[in-house]
Amino acid sequence: MKPTQLSLSMRLRDDATFANYYPGANAGTLGYVEHACETENQWLDSVLYLWGSAGVGRSHLLQAACLRVEERGGRALYLPLAELAHHGPQLLDNVEFCDLVCLDDIQAVLGQPHWEEALFHAFNRLRDAGKQLLIAAHAPPRELSIKLPDLQSRLSIALVFQLHELSDDDKLRALQLRASRRGLRLSDEVGRFILARSVRSTTVLFDTLEQLDHASLQAQRKLTIPFLKEALGW
Amino acid sequence: MKPTQLSLSMRLRDDATFANYYPGANAGTLGYVEHACETENQWLDSVLYLWGSAGVGRSHLLQAACLRVEERGGRALYLPLAELAHHGPQLLDNVEFCDLVCLDDIQAVLGQPHWEEALFHAFNRLRDAGKQLLIAAHAPPRELSIKLPDLQSRLSIALVFQLHELSDDDKLRALQLRASRRGLRLSDEVGRFILARSVRSTTVLFDTLEQLDHASLQAQRKLTIPFLKEALGW
Repeated sequence: MKPTQLSLSMRLRDDATFANYYPGANAGTLGYVEHACETENQWLDSVLYLWGSAGVGRSHLLQAACLRVEERGGRALYLPLAELAHHGPQLLDNVEFCDLVCLDDIQAVLGQPHWEEALFHAFNRLRDAGKQLLIAAHAPPRELSIKLPDLQSRLSIALVFQLHELSDDDKLRALQLRASRRGLRLSDEVGRFILARSVRSTTVLFDTLEQLDHASLQAQRKLTIPFLKEALGW
Repeated sequence: MKPTQLSLSMRLRDDATFANYYPGANAGTLGYVEHACETENQWLDSVLYLWGSAGVGRSHLLQAACLRVEERGGRALYLPLAELAHHGPQLLDNVEFCDLVCLDDIQAVLGQPHWEEALFHAFNRLRDAGKQLLIAAHAPPRELSIKLPDLQSRLSIALVFQLHELSDDDKLRALQLRASRRGLRLSDEVGRFILARSVRSTTVLFDTLEQLDHASLQAQRKLTIPFLKEALGW
């Protein structure tokens, strides 16, 4: 692995774990991604491809997979291509020396011949080395604008999973799961108050929870509606 | 710890892990039990008390807590009191040498003065040793028939969590989570077929899945409705 790859691969959010992912309608996908990480040196034959709109947890699952493989002593590489595209396709050099490679937002580099070429060769090297590849994008493979037929055919045989947005009930539970894992009890009432006042993107909701956690620690107070109004200026 | 305790404490189901527990409406409880296990030698001040009807996953969470503490190199003791009551209250001798003690079905030994006395003293020894106690029962503390006022007051200050039965949608997702963690893809259609034909207790559902897993491995076949009918004789 190149030094640039190593430093790029360190940027995993430490809260992006499987345990922090509320499964909801994505239970089957969560389990399958975990399964792909469990197999330890017995990687699946297939590429896993996750797609869904923003905020459904694509990046969370990819990072959780990397964290899991690293925990077990393996090498994992998380490449968020929308952020890293400007580094050019040489980012993909030597990826096959990792056990697990996660390419996030693959749509960001498609349509560019040198990137598509590099992806195709990287896929082949990973397959030949028997390593695991996980891809995430905003749309299913058939809706991507891929020019290179060879790359299109590689993606067409991936195991495809659609990620769904959580219902409001499930968002409440996702908040409660995260809160309680930090030792904060979040009642249904207070949770629904947050959902009603906040943008309902899970990213924003979890950031709000983060703020509340710090505020309640400092003030040594429980999560009540009056405390929330005070802490968040709502 | 006594040899009897050690041998009794080995009886954990290896599938009773946190990762296998679909949170649903119990997300807050799952997270809090995990939190109680995370704190490593910084146990919570409080006893955790989980209650709910049969099949809501009380024993699963208690065993998952034990597995987690053991994974981290700690000592955990799981005592299913309904099964073990005939061993008598000396079961509770020396429990304070464990980091985590889980008493399942505590109602099974209440109302018996020698058991209640032993429980009260065990609670105190655990508290003095700074160890974690997790209790599960079929009803909340105030509905238990406890004769010893001291024991009643110990339980009245526990952190109480009610576990709820999963909705049918959540049971489907719980099945899908378990299936996919074994590398089996269970479509909504096939999952709903199982739910419609089977008793809806999660225990029975998970056993059915176990059967299917073996059958599909042997037959090298995917989970389709025709295959299910054949494998389960439905």
